[in-house]
Amino acid sequence: MTEAELQALTARAFQGLGVRARDAEDTARILVLGDLFGHATHGVSRVESYGERLELGGINRAPLIRVEDVAPAIARVDGDNGLGPVVGTRALNEAMARARHLGVGLALARGSNHFGAIAPYCWLAAQEGFASIIGSNSTTTIAPTGGREARLGNSPLGFGIPHPGGRPVILDMALSVVARARIRAALTRGEAIPDTWATDREGRPTTDPKAALEGFLLPIGGYKGYGLALIVDLFAGLLSGASYLTHVKSWSEDPGAAQDLGHFFILIDTARLGSSEWLAQRMVDFAAILHDTPATDPGKPVRLPGEIELERFERHRQEGVQVETRVLGILERYAARA
Amino acid sequence: MTEAELQALTARAFQGLGVRARDAEDTARILVLGDLFGHATHGVSRVESYGERLELGGINRAPLIRVEDVAPAIARVDGDNGLGPVVGTRALNEAMARARHLGVGLALARGSNHFGAIAPYCWLAAQEGFASIIGSNSTTTIAPTGGREARLGNSPLGFGIPHPGGRPVILDMALSVVARARIRAALTRGEAIPDTWATDREGRPTTDPKAALEGFLLPIGGYKGYGLALIVDLFAGLLSGASYLTHVKSWSEDPGAAQDLGHFFILIDTARLGSSEWLAQRMVDFAAILHDTPATDPGKPVRLPGEIELERFERHRQEGVQVETRVLGILERYAARA
Repeated sequence: MTEAELQALTARAFQGLGVRARDAEDTARILVLGDLFGHATHGVSRVESYGERLELGGINRAPLIRVEDVAPAIARVDGDNGLGPVVGTRALNEAMARARHLGVGLALARGSNHFGAIAPYCWLAAQEGFASIIGSNSTTTIAPTGGREARLGNSPLGFGIPHPGGRPVILDMALSVVARARIRAALTRGEAIPDTWATDREGRPTTDPKAALEGFLLPIGGYKGYGLALIVDLFAGLLSGASYLTHVKSWSEDPGAAQDLGHFFILIDTARLGSSEWLAQRMVDFAAILHDTPATDPGKPVRLPGEIELERFERHRQEGVQVETRVLGILERYAARA
Repeated sequence: MTEAELQALTARAFQGLGVRARDAEDTARILVLGDLFGHATHGVSRVESYGERLELGGINRAPLIRVEDVAPAIARVDGDNGLGPVVGTRALNEAMARARHLGVGLALARGSNHFGAIAPYCWLAAQEGFASIIGSNSTTTIAPTGGREARLGNSPLGFGIPHPGGRPVILDMALSVVARARIRAALTRGEAIPDTWATDREGRPTTDPKAALEGFLLPIGGYKGYGLALIVDLFAGLLSGASYLTHVKSWSEDPGAAQDLGHFFILIDTARLGSSEWLAQRMVDFAAILHDTPATDPGKPVRLPGEIELERFERHRQEGVQVETRVLGILERYAARA
């Protein structure tokens, strides 16, 4: 399926779910970019859970998004419980407009929902010459270091640096060592997991995937990753005026309730720092220094963050992208209503 | 020794090294705050290496710092190879001034040197009501994931969130799992190290502290920490116009050469987001949710980032701080010249 076909089908599916045309286009763009980067879990497959919550009234089909100019460089965005990618796209655009004008722009969003992967926002920003730092809070899955109850989310955090004429550097990561999906996969295969991935219910590191799934994900770098996850929630949740920590409602446990997630978007206009030739020359040199590192395994050269995703992206844009038959069925069913 | 005494002695020592009074005060403030937070390695003990480089001409005693307004919200600071804390303090102040005016401010510094710990800058910003994201590049000690040659630094990264009337949250971390000092300590004690701390010279994880010291520090979370370290260098080094990656000169190998380090300071004025009562109430609630987490070990309650450092800080401010006799000797020797 070509990008254009997937974009059109996904947008139509969201229109079939009662979402306005422009909002459906924005949602489709973020999710389709997720698929193009090869992150099917954060791609159009989300139509299933987003659709379920739209149908239940857990997400507002037609939000009245309000933007407050709390300072010349800061937009506070109230998402009115709209789809995350709708609120996210609006916040990104507000932050870019301020950064274009002043060099730096910040958008703080509240009243939002799951907004897809972060890489699509960083990529859209990089296309316009903006460096970005973007984060979101999320449902609690991580216990604080030394604790045995989930009190903070696997706060995703992303960064993008534009590279005029070349591949931007994009880092999009959650702050757990691995996603729960990897632990579920180990359980299915009947394999033990490294004791650095998760703890059991009592907060003790475990190699048993079953105990791990009943317990908590471990953050990267121990207390450092715990600290980072908490900082993301402070910027995305606490400073934005959204919910934070355990105040964030669980999507799976209470799909009809508003989550009140928060996001932050910090954008920097690199055009203020030098010409595109200047930036391109530095980005080429930066990448070359890393690529030229002697490899531990000569068959596996050193890569930059986002490089594998951007290679997939380029291939998918040329050759089209595969979507699971089941997901296509859902998209087509909703699209038929439009 | 009281804070005031240590501040006065350290400032006099830097004046003895030929640094101007105001610059000596700024340098002393950043280093003394490092000691008050309990990070003696990033405190006044740095007078030794800073002094050596000032004497060799590797650092400029009397820099002409230039500030360019590249955009209303962005200051580009050329440190003219001055002491890191002098350049850092100036950049912090420029970023705060812009954030006070526009809500957000960015300062990008180049031509700088080691600027002490990051926590002091985050603390100074938090005192004025600013949230902060601050980073610096540094001499290469980390091999990229899959590589077997150091190509990037242990890029320190810090965050601060003010808490009116209470303790701010401050996270100041390097992106390696541990500092080299912990590996040296294991070697001294004849102990093995976990294989997650470092690799040998060939880039293979090792439990032998000797092989680790000849090899490379491992970043937190594998490729995630590698990615973060690289992002810090992109913002602090590449975008600022400073050196980056292997272009950064090694202080220990070439103490007479300018390092051309870069830093970035992103400041957000929280007064634009709500009243201090609003912020204080949310910060109290946020901390309470984490403190109330049932602890894995009942004797070790859950803490917030920076909490232990801020407790030490309060105690040291009241009771004074201990400084190593050897370091005191160096301070007094330089101060005698002033």
